[in-house]
Amino acid sequence: MVNVGILGATGYTGLELIRLLENHKEVKIKKILSRAYCGRKYSYVYRNFAGFEDKYCEDLDWDTVADGVDILFSALPYGVLMEKLTDNIMKDVNIIDVGVDYRFMNKKEYSKYYGKEHKSIELADKFVYGLSEWNEENIKNSRYVANPGCYASVVQIALLPLIKEGLIEEDLIVDGKCGLSGGGRSLTVGTHYVEANESIKAYRINNHPHAQEIKKGIEYFTGKRVNLTFTPHLVPMQRGMLITAYAQLKHKIEHEKIREMYNKYYYDKKFIQILDKGIYVETKWVKNSNMCHINFEINEETNKLIVVAAIDNLIKGASGQAIQNMNIMYGFEQSMGLNCIPIPI
Amino acid sequence: MVNVGILGATGYTGLELIRLLENHKEVKIKKILSRAYCGRKYSYVYRNFAGFEDKYCEDLDWDTVADGVDILFSALPYGVLMEKLTDNIMKDVNIIDVGVDYRFMNKKEYSKYYGKEHKSIELADKFVYGLSEWNEENIKNSRYVANPGCYASVVQIALLPLIKEGLIEEDLIVDGKCGLSGGGRSLTVGTHYVEANESIKAYRINNHPHAQEIKKGIEYFTGKRVNLTFTPHLVPMQRGMLITAYAQLKHKIEHEKIREMYNKYYYDKKFIQILDKGIYVETKWVKNSNMCHINFEINEETNKLIVVAAIDNLIKGASGQAIQNMNIMYGFEQSMGLNCIPIPI
Amino acid sequence: MVNVGILGATGYTGLELIRLLENHKEVKIKKILSRAYCGRKYSYVYRNFAGFEDKYCEDLDWDTVADGVDILFSALPYGVLMEKLTDNIMKDVNIIDVGVDYRFMNKKEYSKYYGKEHKSIELADKFVYGLSEWNEENIKNSRYVANPGCYASVVQIALLPLIKEGLIEEDLIVDGKCGLSGGGRSLTVGTHYVEANESIKAYRINNHPHAQEIKKGIEYFTGKRVNLTFTPHLVPMQRGMLITAYAQLKHKIEHEKIREMYNKYYYDKKFIQILDKGIYVETKWVKNSNMCHINFEINEETNKLIVVAAIDNLIKGASGQAIQNMNIMYGFEQSMGLNCIPIPI
Amino acid sequence: MVNVGILGATGYTGLELIRLLENHKEVKIKKILSRAYCGRKYSYVYRNFAGFEDKYCEDLDWDTVADGVDILFSALPYGVLMEKLTDNIMKDVNIIDVGVDYRFMNKKEYSKYYGKEHKSIELADKFVYGLSEWNEENIKNSRYVANPGCYASVVQIALLPLIKEGLIEEDLIVDGKCGLSGGGRSLTVGTHYVEANESIKAYRINNHPHAQEIKKGIEYFTGKRVNLTFTPHLVPMQRGMLITAYAQLKHKIEHEKIREMYNKYYYDKKFIQILDKGIYVETKWVKNSNMCHINFEINEETNKLIVVAAIDNLIKGASGQAIQNMNIMYGFEQSMGLNCIPIPI
Repeated sequence: MVNVGILGATGYTGLELIRLLENHKEVKIKKILSRAYCGRKYSYVYRNFAGFEDKYCEDLDWDTVADGVDILFSALPYGVLMEKLTDNIMKDVNIIDVGVDYRFMNKKEYSKYYGKEHKSIELADKFVYGLSEWNEENIKNSRYVANPGCYASVVQIALLPLIKEGLIEEDLIVDGKCGLSGGGRSLTVGTHYVEANESIKAYRINNHPHAQEIKKGIEYFTGKRVNLTFTPHLVPMQRGMLITAYAQLKHKIEHEKIREMYNKYYYDKKFIQILDKGIYVETKWVKNSNMCHINFEINEETNKLIVVAAIDNLIKGASGQAIQNMNIMYGFEQSMGLNCIPIPI
Repeated sequence: MVNVGILGATGYTGLELIRLLENHKEVKIKKILSRAYCGRKYSYVYRNFAGFEDKYCEDLDWDTVADGVDILFSALPYGVLMEKLTDNIMKDVNIIDVGVDYRFMNKKEYSKYYGKEHKSIELADKFVYGLSEWNEENIKNSRYVANPGCYASVVQIALLPLIKEGLIEEDLIVDGKCGLSGGGRSLTVGTHYVEANESIKAYRINNHPHAQEIKKGIEYFTGKRVNLTFTPHLVPMQRGMLITAYAQLKHKIEHEKIREMYNKYYYDKKFIQILDKGIYVETKWVKNSNMCHINFEINEETNKLIVVAAIDNLIKGASGQAIQNMNIMYGFEQSMGLNCIPIPI
Repeated sequence: MVNVGILGATGYTGLELIRLLENHKEVKIKKILSRAYCGRKYSYVYRNFAGFEDKYCEDLDWDTVADGVDILFSALPYGVLMEKLTDNIMKDVNIIDVGVDYRFMNKKEYSKYYGKEHKSIELADKFVYGLSEWNEENIKNSRYVANPGCYASVVQIALLPLIKEGLIEEDLIVDGKCGLSGGGRSLTVGTHYVEANESIKAYRINNHPHAQEIKKGIEYFTGKRVNLTFTPHLVPMQRGMLITAYAQLKHKIEHEKIREMYNKYYYDKKFIQILDKGIYVETKWVKNSNMCHINFEINEETNKLIVVAAIDNLIKGASGQAIQNMNIMYGFEQSMGLNCIPIPI
Repeated sequence: MVNVGILGATGYTGLELIRLLENHKEVKIKKILSRAYCGRKYSYVYRNFAGFEDKYCEDLDWDTVADGVDILFSALPYGVLMEKLTDNIMKDVNIIDVGVDYRFMNKKEYSKYYGKEHKSIELADKFVYGLSEWNEENIKNSRYVANPGCYASVVQIALLPLIKEGLIEEDLIVDGKCGLSGGGRSLTVGTHYVEANESIKAYRINNHPHAQEIKKGIEYFTGKRVNLTFTPHLVPMQRGMLITAYAQLKHKIEHEKIREMYNKYYYDKKFIQILDKGIYVETKWVKNSNMCHINFEINEETNKLIVVAAIDNLIKGASGQAIQNMNIMYGFEQSMGLNCIPIPI
């Protein structure tokens, strides 16, 4: 039995971690840590837990954070973990950081994207990048995982095989769409129901930190540097993330060949499904699950490849993949606790 | 291992039955029966099954429908099962009918509400009414269950204790609200996205067949006849059902006494939760689960009791309760396969 | 030409006032007053004004607030106007208060519902209650109007004829449903998109200030005191308000008689439509307009009357009716600037 | 006064035409033609017309279709007008076709995209392409207008200046997003509320007829041929269309220069607004209006230009632009009947 603690338990990532881990047969949740709700039952914050295993939120004390647990999942907002994490804490506990602080990070970029100085950049090297299907060996042998961002997960899963095989030019355009849970639980005018419903917008054009993460991830996994033009969009739905990627094929290639190439990488990956030719990828078919669906078309006229992929941003894009990484780390079956069939409606 | 067949597998009730039963450790789904999609893989109809246990839909042949299965779940539209069901079929197989054909039904009412003559009304008596928390003993000893309607489930769960205890006058007003999945998968202008979104309406005022079912259920469980004014509303969301019931209290009574009375009936019922005083009932806290949440207020000025209760119409209101009934019938733990924590966002 | 100033211009009521008044041919908007956005263009706050008549938001200075305008519309949050309004200001300018501070208010109730002491309760008597179709004469002869609340408007329009005619018992149950714009633009967890979408809840049961307003309005217009049990619900849509009212008929009465009675009151009221028998009231058919739709059914068994009515909460429930009241006050055609056909999709 | 007839009046385009034309002071609607609802009042089909100017739907008789009207707006589904239109009819009446049959059409492509043989291709040349801001002179001098498709409108408005000025390479990628009203009122599983809500999908990749129309429009207006990779997406909202276009800039150019270039084309076009630098384009800011909002960013690293533009697909993308074209044709002010401020919430 793995004893687990959750940092930042009352955001949406924390909510999904706890919900999923409650059904993980090798896990015991020992600590739910939340400053804002310390002393409150978790079911006070999220009433879906009424009648289920319930716990009190504890205050986050960094001196004792590792006591009594084997692994910490951190779902803290950016900038919190990097201020408090130390070698000492890391000695005592495994960590899966679902936040951004240790993802391929260097000091300069951190300041640029997050407007703060990174206080423990020297610890970043200890974290292994947790793109489960692509970094299994390293995750297995590490005690610290930096879980990828949601966009970074789905974009890399969709494009890495193509880049690794040298099928496409290194000039990528990715148009991303995500539901509002991607923005978390903090209140803004833009995420107020009345303002967000019945509207779609592009935002942070050329300026989203996931773009940087994607480029580094691609270099890490394929050795190749790419250009990336990335535009995220906010879509009026709660969960779901879909990306539409555009790339120039280097040569004429048949549809079926690309399918074979995807299968080469993913035939034994339960969570990744290449859909049949002509079937549309839709976020509902992966909703509430750890699945990723992929399909593609070739534009004959321009020899461009269009790849569409979808995940549930809170699960494969965050908490689900974090649990998958824990499973890898501890030698459990990868799908343990994650075997939920998507709920499309 | 219980071998299961599903009739009418490609509607939303069928979808949820199959999704939930796939994770039931004492069940093996043997047959998925669907006229419309016969010969198709189930994942062709519902792509959320891509990468999961998949089966071909078989044609519905009434001569062999019971072969190889221990129990049939029928999620057929009204009027189909009653035309085909026979004593012969019933000898060979257990049945849980998630449809309407055998719920406290008599010939006259059936014609009135469904515009057809009931062809096998004599079989109705063999079916036990499947309101799990109220009819456990009978369900345990029966081979045939008529699963309650969604509104009928939540209204009875919320009001039966009050009526049984003689706390309220027998003149009930129930105002119901339900998401669009309650109307199933058949296409109508009223359920077209563009017409249904961003609007709420009352419909079938005084004319909803569940009103009849509720009155009969109340008489069955309490021996009392009530008047019922029932108005259902369609709400622009996919799932979720909330009812607001208004009843005259016979005497002055303290809030806490009513809470105690509810607890007397439900303290050991996992799926029924009486929320703390002042906490609002919201459908999201029961979404994707078999839970029912209840709370209430007393209007001091008029001595009226207002009860609010919520369920997921597709689960506790249909497929989940059907599985709960199967668990009771076979002596499994009631929550087997139904232990999913609600997913509120 | 009437010169208009808007107080509290950047909430949703202010937004709709300005949008509608821009197309009112007898009105000139002279001042847009907003503390929060003072010095900003209105199109900076609401970009739908890009390319249309635009103005700078001015700071709200109570000493000069009446300068240069004939009438002020106040869309301030509760508690602001009552602190600042004086006889002196009122001498110089007409006022339509779309807020709550002067609606049948007395000191005690104000404290109870709004948790503040009312600082200018003596001015309340100068305000006429602005339920346009029921108080036309008084509005015409007054310079100060207290615009009714949204629920108060639709409930009174639907029930006043029945009460006035003595058709129903004075024990009323009203079940209200409203979209999220009813809660305004302030940010709360409950109105965060991810929390509000795909869920319905009852709230402020027995405790909504509109209940008080409705009872007083009924007494004011009919001389009768009623009991009222009122339960509002939040529905996942942006605009739209629907109420379902339940009342005991005093005698047996034919459907057609009730229709005639409604027509007696409303046959010449453009904004109030009694729908044909059997037609469902839906909020979409009044959306973005000043219309109110009404229909009803009789429950033969219990002799209860069920009345369903719908308005757009931001228009007939707030800004539209305010403009209607201004039209009455100035002798313009009531529908001037309000002739917009509803936009259902 | 222009006497107007509407063909195919009961689809969403027809609905919006009638709603807008009712408020057009130089127009009298004489005929509402609809096979499906012939003999019914228009308010029977769309109850938002209750209490407003109402008319009976007439049967569509091609022999008399032009009688008594000066201009016909056709909102018929594809394939109907081309089968029935003749020189004879055209002699007697002006026509604005909001459908697809005469948009830059040739026989081969028509068969390819619409699966039917075009029966009156020889009439196509008589129709002028109705992209209002770009073809004003021709529209003014023509009696027949083929109104552009919704995607074709917004893409061309956003990109034509860039192409005409030779700023970008002729290899365009356009990622489109549209609400469900874009698919009209016909019932499909994909547009059933329960299936469409809370999901996003890409569809008709490389295969959308608007792509062809856009390429021809660009050639028509600029003389240049472009490659176009176009992917439309369905977004869970009722109206609104947003496109994100990606193009390679030929040279380094400053942000401000591009803004100047847009202003050169659009400074005097009321319906087209270039937003301030950094302001996000959102469909809500143009909802229920004839406006088009545009903004752009340059990716410094790749020298790619990202252009984002939004319209209301039913208004600027269909009925609104059709009325704008009628205004041009008859010499009215372009914004007559279209001066509605967008309604964002």
